Parts: sequence; C-alpha cells; structure tokens
Amino acid sequence: MISRREIHQILKGYARERITVATIGSHTALQILKGARDEGFKNLVICKKGTEEVYRQFGVADELLTVENFTQVLETEFQEGLIKRNAILIPHGSFVEYLSPARIENELKVPIFGNRAVLNWESDREKEREWLVRADLRLPREFKSPAEIDLLVIVKFPGAKGGKGYFLAGSPEEFERKIRKMKLRGKEKFTLQEYVIGTRFYPHYFYSPLTERLELLSIDIRYESNIDGLARLSSLLEDLHPVLSFVVTGNLPVVVRESLLQQVLGMGLRVVKASQELFSPGLTGPFCIETVCTEDLEFVAFEISARIVAGTNLYINGSPYSQLLYHEPMSTGRRISREIKIALKQGQQGQQGSLDKIIF
Amino acid sequence: MISRREIHQILKGYARERITVATIGSHTALQILKGARDEGFKNLVICKKGTEEVYRQFGVADELLTVENFTQVLETEFQEGLIKRNAILIPHGSFVEYLSPARIENELKVPIFGNRAVLNWESDREKEREWLVRADLRLPREFKSPAEIDLLVIVKFPGAKGGKGYFLAGSPEEFERKIRKMKLRGKEKFTLQEYVIGTRFYPHYFYSPLTERLELLSIDIRYESNIDGLARLSSLLEDLHPVLSFVVTGNLPVVVRESLLQQVLGMGLRVVKASQELFSPGLTGPFCIETVCTEDLEFVAFEISARIVAGTNLYINGSPYSQLLYHEPMSTGRRISREIKIALKQGQQGQQGSLDKIIF
Amino acid sequence: MISRREIHQILKGYARERITVATIGSHTALQILKGARDEGFKNLVICKKGTEEVYRQFGVADELLTVENFTQVLETEFQEGLIKRNAILIPHGSFVEYLSPARIENELKVPIFGNRAVLNWESDREKEREWLVRADLRLPREFKSPAEIDLLVIVKFPGAKGGKGYFLAGSPEEFERKIRKMKLRGKEKFTLQEYVIGTRFYPHYFYSPLTERLELLSIDIRYESNIDGLARLSSLLEDLHPVLSFVVTGNLPVVVRESLLQQVLGMGLRVVKASQELFSPGLTGPFCIETVCTEDLEFVAFEISARIVAGTNLYINGSPYSQLLYHEPMSTGRRISREIKIALKQGQQGQQGSLDKIIF
Repeated sequence: MISRREIHQILKGYARERITVATIGSHTALQILKGARDEGFKNLVICKKGTEEVYRQFGVADELLTVENFTQVLETEFQEGLIKRNAILIPHGSFVEYLSPARIENELKVPIFGNRAVLNWESDREKEREWLVRADLRLPREFKSPAEIDLLVIVKFPGAKGGKGYFLAGSPEEFERKIRKMKLRGKEKFTLQEYVIGTRFYPHYFYSPLTERLELLSIDIRYESNIDGLARLSSLLEDLHPVLSFVVTGNLPVVVRESLLQQVLGMGLRVVKASQELFSPGLTGPFCIETVCTEDLEFVAFEISARIVAGTNLYINGSPYSQLLYHEPMSTGRRISREIKIALKQGQQGQQGSLDKIIF
Repeated sequence: MISRREIHQILKGYARERITVATIGSHTALQILKGARDEGFKNLVICKKGTEEVYRQFGVADELLTVENFTQVLETEFQEGLIKRNAILIPHGSFVEYLSPARIENELKVPIFGNRAVLNWESDREKEREWLVRADLRLPREFKSPAEIDLLVIVKFPGAKGGKGYFLAGSPEEFERKIRKMKLRGKEKFTLQEYVIGTRFYPHYFYSPLTERLELLSIDIRYESNIDGLARLSSLLEDLHPVLSFVVTGNLPVVVRESLLQQVLGMGLRVVKASQELFSPGLTGPFCIETVCTEDLEFVAFEISARIVAGTNLYINGSPYSQLLYHEPMSTGRRISREIKIALKQGQQGQQGSLDKIIF
Repeated sequence: MISRREIHQILKGYARERITVATIGSHTALQILKGARDEGFKNLVICKKGTEEVYRQFGVADELLTVENFTQVLETEFQEGLIKRNAILIPHGSFVEYLSPARIENELKVPIFGNRAVLNWESDREKEREWLVRADLRLPREFKSPAEIDLLVIVKFPGAKGGKGYFLAGSPEEFERKIRKMKLRGKEKFTLQEYVIGTRFYPHYFYSPLTERLELLSIDIRYESNIDGLARLSSLLEDLHPVLSFVVTGNLPVVVRESLLQQVLGMGLRVVKASQELFSPGLTGPFCIETVCTEDLEFVAFEISARIVAGTNLYINGSPYSQLLYHEPMSTGRRISREIKIALKQGQQGQQGSLDKIIF
C-alpha cells in the first residue's frame, strides 16, 4: 500500500486556496459535486464516455473530464493532472468497484478523502466480520452444513449477480428439495446465512475525526428489483414463479422509531471505535451499516459500507436527522466538503495536521 | 382528575417571558425540542438514564434532566422543579405510556399542552369507539362470535405485544382450523375485527382553538416488523412460516390523492366537533386518525391518537402539506410551540385566557 | 380542433402584466396554485361544489369559482369570464378526464399551458404506442391469443375501474383455468400484456421549448389500493382471496440509482424528439413515463402522461433532483409558472412569440 507519508507529501504541495473536490461520475457524484460547490470548492467529475450528458444536464460540475474507462484514472499522466489541480478524490461505491480496492491502495497517488486502509477491511469478507464482531454488533448466524439448518436461512451462491438464484430454506429437507429442483445437487459452493425477518434500515453515519463527533445524517431503505415488484403479487403466481433477485435500483426514505436511535448511534460508535483499534486512525467520514430490525426491536447487521452510500441521494436537500444537526440542508456529500473546509480553517488558524487526519 | 382551575392557577404563576417547553426523551422529543427552539422558547428534556447521549448528540436540548425511571416525574419535588422553570409539558405516545393516563390525570400538576381530559377517551376502547362513531367515521365491523365471520377478519388477542400471534380468517372454518393449530381451542379471549384491505394512511392533524382552524400537516405510513419484511418474501416460504407481528419500527412518507383530501379533512373536522360535544373544550393541538383507504376510495378508521404521533418525525423540516400552510418548515413539534407563542401574544395584546384554552 | 392561430389571437388580447394562472380544483391544483403565487402570478381555482373547503383550508387560492360540474367550464359565458381574467389554464389528469380530450380540443378557447395537440396522442392507445415505439422505448410485449402466452402476462378487461378483476397468467392453461373460474369463458374482450416484474419508477420530466432543456424534476411510486395492502399479507390468506385492484390512492417518494439516470434522461429526450416529429411543436412542459426497472436494469415503459402527474404532489417543496437544478424549492407546478414567467420576460425584451411557444 502507498504510505500515508507519501500521500501527505503530495497533499503538502497542494495550493490550499485552490482545492478541487473531484469524483467519478456515478453513484453519488451529483450530490458530492453540489456539496462541494455549496461549501465553496471548485469541483470536477470524471465521466465515462457517454455519461457526461447526465452531469451536464444537472449543471453541477465545474470541470468534466472524459475517459474511455475508469481505470484510465490510474494512469500516471491522468493522476498528475489531478494533482496539478489540487484534487481531493471522494471515493464512493462505484469508484471502489471500477478502480478495485487493491489498485486504489497501491497505485492511486491522488489524495483520497477518508482512510484508504479501510478498503481492505471492507472488501474482505473475513476481515469485515472480524471488525463487526469486535464492534459487538449482532450478526446473522452462519451455518457450515445444510444439516444444521434449524431456522430460516438464505442460501447464497458466490458471484450471483444481484443475488440471482439465492433461495430460502427452513429445514435441511427444504434445502435438499430446492437444490435438487435447481439441479445443483448441493455440490456447488454456497453459504448458509440466517435470514433475519424484519424491517430494513440503512443508517448513514458520518464520523469526524476533527470534531470527534459521530453524526447520524439520514436513513434509507433499498428498493430492489425484482424482489420489490415480485412481493406485490406473489399470491397471484400459479404456474410461473420468477427467480428472485436483489438488484438495487433506487432508494426509499425512512425514519426510525426515536427510542431506537440509542441502538443506532451505539452501533455506529462501536464500529468507529473498533476501526480505530484495528486500523488506526480508523474510519473517517461517511459510512453505513446495513441492518434489519427484528420484531424484538433488535438490530442485526449484515454489512458495512465504509464510504458514502447511494441511499444518501434521497437527502440532497437534507434529511429529518441532518436538519437537527445543521441549520442548512446538509447532505452527506456536502458534509464531506464541510469536513475539508473545517480542516483547512484549522490549518489557517495554525493547527497542524488537520487535513492529514481526514485524507489518505 | 385534577381540575382545570387548579392547573390554570399554577399556570397563572408562570413568568410568561420565561416559559420552558419540556418533554420526555423519547418518541418525538427531538422534534418537539427543535420546534421549541425555532419558536424562541427555552427547552428541556427529561431522559431516562442511559439515553441522554441521543439528545446530547443531536444538540437540540437546552437543559437535560436525568431520571432512573419516568414515573419519577410525578414526584412532588420533581414537579415543583418543573413548575419553577415555568415548564409546559408536551405529551407524546411514550409520555402517556410511561406515566399512565390515570396518573397523568390525577397526579401531574405541571401544565400540559392540550386537553388532558382526552386521555380517558383515547385509552378506553369503548369510549374511543363512541367518539369515532359520533364523528361518523366508517369503522371496521366487529364480530361477536366466530360463527358470524362472513368476510376477512383479524383475530386479536389482548396483551399480544406488537400484535404477535394475531391471525386472519375468512370463514368460521378457517377460524377453527387456525385456533386448533395454535392449540388455543378458541377458549381464550379474543376479538374479531373486519380486516380492511387497502392502503394505510396516518394523517397528522393539528386543531387550533385559537385560530379555530384544522390543519393537515403531514401523512405517514408505519413501517412494521416483522410484517413489512415478511411480505417481501412470503411466496418463498415453504417449510417455515414465521408468526406475524406488527411492531412499529419506523415511518415512511406518503401523500394522498388530492381528490381524497376532502374526506381526510372531513374526518378530522368531525372528530374535533364530536370531541367538543363529548369533553368540552374538546381536542386541542395534534392528533392522528389511523386509516385504511379501500379500493372504493373510502377511508376506514381504526384508531385515534389524540396527541403528536411518531410519524411526524419524517417532517422535521416540513411536509408537502405544511409547506402549503406555512412559508417556513413547520413540523408538528414546532406547530405546538407556535400555538403557545400565539397564545402568549394574544395575552400581551390584552386578550384574556388564550393560554388557558390550549393548556390543561 | 381549434386552431393554434385562434388561441394565439385570444392570447394576444391578454394583459401580460395581469395574467391569472387557473386550474380545476383536484389532482395537483394545490401545487399549481402555490407555484403560481411563488412566481408572482395571481391564481384562480375552479371547484366543484362541496370541494371548495379544501382549497380554502390550505389558503392557496386568490380566487375561487364554484361550478355544479366541471363541464360548465366549457360554457361560453364561463370561458369569457376566464378570458377576461387573462387566464391561462393548467391542464392536469382530472382536468382532462372531466372535460374530455375531444371537448378540450374543440370547444375550449381559453389558452392552455402546453400543446393541446398532445391530448389526442396520449388518449388514443394506438397512437400512444406509435409514439413510444418511435421514441425507441422498450414496451411490454402484447399477445394476440392466449395460446401464445409464454411468459407472465396480465389479462386486462376494458373499462375495469381501477384494474379490478385483472389477473395474471403464466401459460395458456393458467389463462383457461382462471377464465373458467371467473365464468367468463374467454369470450369477453381482453388484452394480454407481458407483466414485467421489477421496481416501478414514475419519473417527472419537464421539457422547456424556451431553454430547449429537458429537466428531471422528481420521481415517485404509486401507492395503490387494494394491491399494496394485499401484498403485505398474501401469505396469510387461505379461504378468502380478495380480487386484486390497482386504484391509485397516493404516492411514495423514491430516487433512482445514479447510473440509471442516463437511461431515464435518454427516454425523456427521445419521447420529446419523437413528439416533435409526430405533432409539431411537440411535447411542452411536464410529462411522465410510467416504467418498471427489471433486474437487468432495463426500463420498460407502460404509458405516458403528457401533463403534470399526481406524484409531483410529494415535492411541493422541491425534490432531490430539482434541488440540483434550482436553488429554490421547485415543484413541477411552480416550474410551469416559471416557464410562463420566462416567456413574458422574453416578450418584454422584444423577443416575439415566446408565449405562443408554450401555450395552445
């Protein structure tokens, strides 16, 4: 991995009054770009050829660079261009997916908002579980063998795009029956995970190392195809039963019962604390824990996204929670730029190292 | 019940320029506290030990009192402390649940926003029905005996936490079959209520005795565990069928078809009018009618909450409806403080009794 | 059809500094009225007797005219009254339904925002399909005979109020079985349409001929009775299975995955372009394409509404998308008045014909 020192050396060369907030044109870029502008930064979006029109149409980008494919961003010349522009890159889900965690860690010299050490902990399933366990989150049970199934499980196949072909089983017999029907004979690789039934909540947190405050900015529910369409008419299906899939197509807004906020904030705090123990200085900036709330009002955590998530796109103009914390519309995208602004201000006031704390 | 006269006597001793808007830390407290501040009042929150952090983290409370359990609020010394602070208490769902309607009516001398006489009408199922019938709302049919079942009914057991174990039956036979399966043999106490299928709407009203206006501030849908998780995959369940429950975990935003607003406002007006006949001066401030809209575009009412409901938490920054009525973000929590402000202003202008009208 | 020339002649007689934005009291009228006011116009609402109270209660109308039934609007005297008030009528769903496309086209001399030539293309199923095909949208397959059914189809009966009695079939056999059960014997008129399973999105577009820009202002999901209630408990139904219906009762907010915006904007642009080829000057102002997003992230289009749709009522105070485009809360209703304002301004600056471009 590129060393912190190397990135901070590059950052040292930046003209602090001409920082450019940059990102890749997808996922939450519109929000990140608008947020940068709202906080007074110049912004820049890197678009894959053919998608520029979206960013032009919304008119939120100061500069637009086009690439044939996103890995071009890693080319030396391209990186030098970004560094010359004093660019701080804001990573998001598509950013990580297109560039790959490993290449970001090892090849990307452009300063990134947040802690790039988190990529490794987020993308490796084992490490992620270690992190969440240390944070004392309740995780779904995992089963080694179909014979052990004693509650509802979801059977997952690796690489199944959008969870296509995943199925549910409530007993070893049901598992065998369904595997046979799929003509898989149980020989393929699969994982068996407790299927927790309840309401889904994806809280959007922001941890600021500068103010040492954890903020709950908003919450969403994912809107998935085909399951959210299928659910509407499952009782009507007779001869044909379409195969279920869980492809995220959008997001729905939600608020959580106020008496549950203690749990929601608690999970966030423990995740931050565990991250500081596991990979100092730990989690920085936005993250999301994917949860299900059971009928016993207990949250079960499925995954962590250690960066801005797409559900924040609902709240470009603020959310019920962000409105409690800020007197202006504060999206997660804007909150990122706000953090950079706070760091720059602390630097002007003679406080050293603030920018280094939030960038790597 | 404590007399109106007694409460108004206490209120008379209040320093009107130093009113504190106070509530219990749960349910809709964040919104109530923010709303009080937005209207220029000092605010105060009473937290159960361990939950203070939530209210600190959002930074919305001027003063925070901690109790071991909420019934402490009823102790003489505690009440005197609140009265010394010129506190007006804002009741909400958890407030009523934790303190109990009877004890609030008989022991709580701190002035409450609204009409405490409503507690009795809201918490007694028979009285509630009498009120809604007088307001000419369409209520779900109730059945005396399983033999009478001639449409879809929900079978409810008293004290079932979150509606756990409730089931549906479409005929006397289905009822018997299911009761046998549950090994209940039909001997237990239960109620049989028509299950109305349609879209759920929880309109949030505010009735102002000062302006004599009924306002529709917002509408929500409850987000319930495990039913809202179960519904997504009911077609996939084979061997295991989890028992249904209806525990409210959050809220979802919604707007109603504009041509239905006449019905929605009409229900609210009739409920206010009936309340004035049944328990003068009647309903004051926020309330919610829990409804289902059938395919014939008729609303069926299930329950009334004669206070601020949790669904208003979605609209801390205003709703599509409140934006029509107000040129600033008007949550229900803020609307309560606005009403107190209007009363204080009328008092300054020499109009007597305005505060008495909205507080008891 | 009344000629453009005739309407523009009437418009020529209007006092441009005293334009009244008028509409019929239903559907999206609250939003249209508020939007007009926000843009500085006088507004007027025409209410059916008995519904005035809704518009009074929200306090958004400057003038309120009451009619016994909406067709009165077409009477000469009534029309003359509107013309004397310099009224521009804003059509919406109920407006078109109550007055009928044919009568609007032939009898309504009051200038209408948008292009009344679109009414014909929108209300005639064949023409609508021609339009959407030319716009290169993916449409659901249609089947001539039940024998051809080789995927999930929805069987629709003409005139079925709210889709009542529509059913699904996955094979010719299932079709026959269900038709027999309904005692229809397949002799009745019906259409067979591919039932596309996925997430529903109703994007709200606005095309401005003045700026030649297509704007995506917001997106909603329809909230339908009884299907959205039925879906929650389908697994619990045993003896009784209520007949499905799709009556729109409200709307839910949603955002779409950012990488899908290219497709969403593309569909809108192609629909506008095709409209310009088919009925010059083509689509003007707000429109909505009803889509389903499949698990392959492809949008299938079901219908087009060539006017403001009810889902925009969610966004009276702006949406995540409109906030990217405008620095103030911009509902579709307000955007319409903004377009009129732009045209009037261009007229003042000596640019001829701007108002004519957006009114017919």
